[in-house]
Amino acid sequence: MKDFIFLFTTGEAKYKQIYQQIKTLIEQRNLKSNDCLPSIRKLADTLQVSRNTTLTAYEQLVAEGYIRGEGRKGYFVNTLEMIFSQEEMMPYQPAQKVRQASIVDFRAGSVDQQYFPLKTWRQMANQILQLKDSYVYGDSFGEQRLKEQLVHYLLQARGVKINEEDIIIGSSTQQLLVYLGFLLKEDFDSIIVENPGYIGAREAFQLHNFTMEPLAVNENGTQLQQLAHLQSRLIYVTPSHHFPYGVSMSIQQRQALIHWAKEVDGFIIEDDYDSEFRYAQQPFPALASLDKSHVIYVGTFSKSFLPGIRLSYMVLPKSLIGRYKRYFAHFEQNASSLHQLTMASFMEKGEWTRHIKRMRLIYKHKMSFLVETLKKQFGDHMTIVGEHSGLYVLIKFHTHHTEQQLIQSALEYGVKVYPTSPYFLQQPSHEPIIQLGFSNLKLDEIQLGMQLLKKAWCTN
Amino acid sequence: MKDFIFLFTTGEAKYKQIYQQIKTLIEQRNLKSNDCLPSIRKLADTLQVSRNTTLTAYEQLVAEGYIRGEGRKGYFVNTLEMIFSQEEMMPYQPAQKVRQASIVDFRAGSVDQQYFPLKTWRQMANQILQLKDSYVYGDSFGEQRLKEQLVHYLLQARGVKINEEDIIIGSSTQQLLVYLGFLLKEDFDSIIVENPGYIGAREAFQLHNFTMEPLAVNENGTQLQQLAHLQSRLIYVTPSHHFPYGVSMSIQQRQALIHWAKEVDGFIIEDDYDSEFRYAQQPFPALASLDKSHVIYVGTFSKSFLPGIRLSYMVLPKSLIGRYKRYFAHFEQNASSLHQLTMASFMEKGEWTRHIKRMRLIYKHKMSFLVETLKKQFGDHMTIVGEHSGLYVLIKFHTHHTEQQLIQSALEYGVKVYPTSPYFLQQPSHEPIIQLGFSNLKLDEIQLGMQLLKKAWCTN
Repeated sequence: MKDFIFLFTTGEAKYKQIYQQIKTLIEQRNLKSNDCLPSIRKLADTLQVSRNTTLTAYEQLVAEGYIRGEGRKGYFVNTLEMIFSQEEMMPYQPAQKVRQASIVDFRAGSVDQQYFPLKTWRQMANQILQLKDSYVYGDSFGEQRLKEQLVHYLLQARGVKINEEDIIIGSSTQQLLVYLGFLLKEDFDSIIVENPGYIGAREAFQLHNFTMEPLAVNENGTQLQQLAHLQSRLIYVTPSHHFPYGVSMSIQQRQALIHWAKEVDGFIIEDDYDSEFRYAQQPFPALASLDKSHVIYVGTFSKSFLPGIRLSYMVLPKSLIGRYKRYFAHFEQNASSLHQLTMASFMEKGEWTRHIKRMRLIYKHKMSFLVETLKKQFGDHMTIVGEHSGLYVLIKFHTHHTEQQLIQSALEYGVKVYPTSPYFLQQPSHEPIIQLGFSNLKLDEIQLGMQLLKKAWCTN
Repeated sequence: MKDFIFLFTTGEAKYKQIYQQIKTLIEQRNLKSNDCLPSIRKLADTLQVSRNTTLTAYEQLVAEGYIRGEGRKGYFVNTLEMIFSQEEMMPYQPAQKVRQASIVDFRAGSVDQQYFPLKTWRQMANQILQLKDSYVYGDSFGEQRLKEQLVHYLLQARGVKINEEDIIIGSSTQQLLVYLGFLLKEDFDSIIVENPGYIGAREAFQLHNFTMEPLAVNENGTQLQQLAHLQSRLIYVTPSHHFPYGVSMSIQQRQALIHWAKEVDGFIIEDDYDSEFRYAQQPFPALASLDKSHVIYVGTFSKSFLPGIRLSYMVLPKSLIGRYKRYFAHFEQNASSLHQLTMASFMEKGEWTRHIKRMRLIYKHKMSFLVETLKKQFGDHMTIVGEHSGLYVLIKFHTHHTEQQLIQSALEYGVKVYPTSPYFLQQPSHEPIIQLGFSNLKLDEIQLGMQLLKKAWCTN
């Protein structure tokens, strides 16, 4: 029988300290296999604690397998293989937050905080937390209430007639594409993607080892005539607002695309990520409004409402929806059911339509201000691309500088601007194109940014 | 030049009605290719609207490609292929909600609504909505603030020492396993899974076409000696609280498992889904506390806090984390950043620990009440399994009835109870085992449920 010396510290329960110290003694071989431990009573007396305390400590050790009780004979140390990891523990270090202090950040993908319907959203979110439905696992494919609203919204705003059962809710376009990819790769091994185009979608297809065939897009539109020379029967497009060029497909192009999908018996994945923000005209009807059997429609609340709520949806053709639901029958939903229900109640009350209407005006105003200021500052030195819709604009610079040089010199003046070359499948050879997002900037910030960019880009 | 007859309806903007009607005329071939449209002025005069109204309508039609302007000659209808979908539109029908009216539902997977810290959570969630960070895309792999809290929590509660960079936040265990699977399948093509075991994990591995080797588990524990006969170098386990049997691995078993992983140079996926709720002793230290280089640790807030917020996390060994981050470099986070930040602030304030402590007591109380009542009602007719931890209990019935018969006769008395046979890889041949979840039931509901079950099961 060994002697123990315990030093109790304050704070932690005594039984826990006893448990911890005996455990350490065993692990460090100070107590060896089959060593006998002091009895519950003996240890309690020695340490001046209650027997209940020593009993609890021993029970924990027994439960975890460190020691065993042998009835009246007492407690003994078990045989342990000494394989505790010898790996050096890294000390805990909060990540170094070295942030390049930027004065104006033209990052795309955020939303306007100033005009966010904070009060209404908060109120509805709080109400949702009182529902019984918020405390259980929801429907795997999305909350019924939200799907009902989406049916109405898609019909009204995008001309798409669907049933609730055709909708799959998810946390992001990428997540939905990754999941869908498991089905698609059974019938397809390659896909046509826009070049340039949205990297997120390409990465999702890449995960499934799809071969990618590029389809050229430029400021004048998608070069659909190239389709005739491509092998794939699957295509991913952004017809309402091409990412990043901002061009839209005409009705002829839409029809040609659907015609193609029927001919090859394939599918069009229509990513309708920000169709809400079209300034010159009404949003164009979706491809899915022209044909439902060959179009997979994908939409999101990230761009038009709030990226942080992670809420997207997809509408599958009849030939896929049943299979998808069988594939993912035991999967849980990825989007928060609280956010789903809050959004449903936001839409039910008409707040969503109001919000989009209001934001369209606000963003339109910012867009024209940005474009005007750009023209004033840079005149003929650049061409503006995609000013009629969306939450960013592209500027094509007539300069011998590279994209990287422009970004770097802007940064030296405290302005963050963004490249477009990553969107191209091959390194583009044309003049540099810079992306400027403006959604979360105020007018005076845009103004200031422009003045700084003028200095950055026109002094050398 | 055609004549138009317009009937304006109230409600919608006039330009939109003009646009819509001309579009329909074109689509229905009442206006044919190259037909000339009335001039802006002529149409405005005829319809008694402003020229701006007709101009806007025409501009929308031009933008969408239905018509073209030819300068002073006027507007002409474009050539359209008539491929509009002829598919019959299904009428909008709200889904039939035929719910079997149940009086008491012993469903596992919900949480106690009564003791949810509604006020605190609400307050913190509301504060988060005012942060600038809530209006932009967050960190792809999770919010820094939450990761910092998880580092502390995992060390304190589970003995796991990690750095923030090793954590990947996701929306659910399944989602994390699906994403991780893309990496793992490069080095592994089969995986050992517990039998019976959690279906969700199996389904995630199934998606990646992993071959599954069953490892038997029963009321007495995991049959680790079977490992010697298995080929795979990858294993998925629930060591702290086996799903569904509720057994825990002893320290010897944990060490043996890690020893095995080192021998075969493989990985253990440790799903620690509800380690918080252990009633007899403190939670056992995680496998990941013994070895970090061969253990992939997965945890979730769904079971211990709220399923609806869809928030889980995984800790990857050094050999995987870099690769994972490269693989998913352009992927967006799947969990809501609002919920992540709210949870972080909940943990920072100590509310999380308080909540878990409180809930452990409450659930412990419910568990003993359920077990007592079960014993009183059914005595020797059944054996109770897994009563020392978790939010459900299993009852093994000594009866000639099948699982399905027991579920059905319970339902006839308005009580929903759940099967365990789906958790088995092969149809089990033993006596029926029923799962009873109790987390969101009040004591009197449990009591009532037991009385009804007694009637349902003991009268025939």
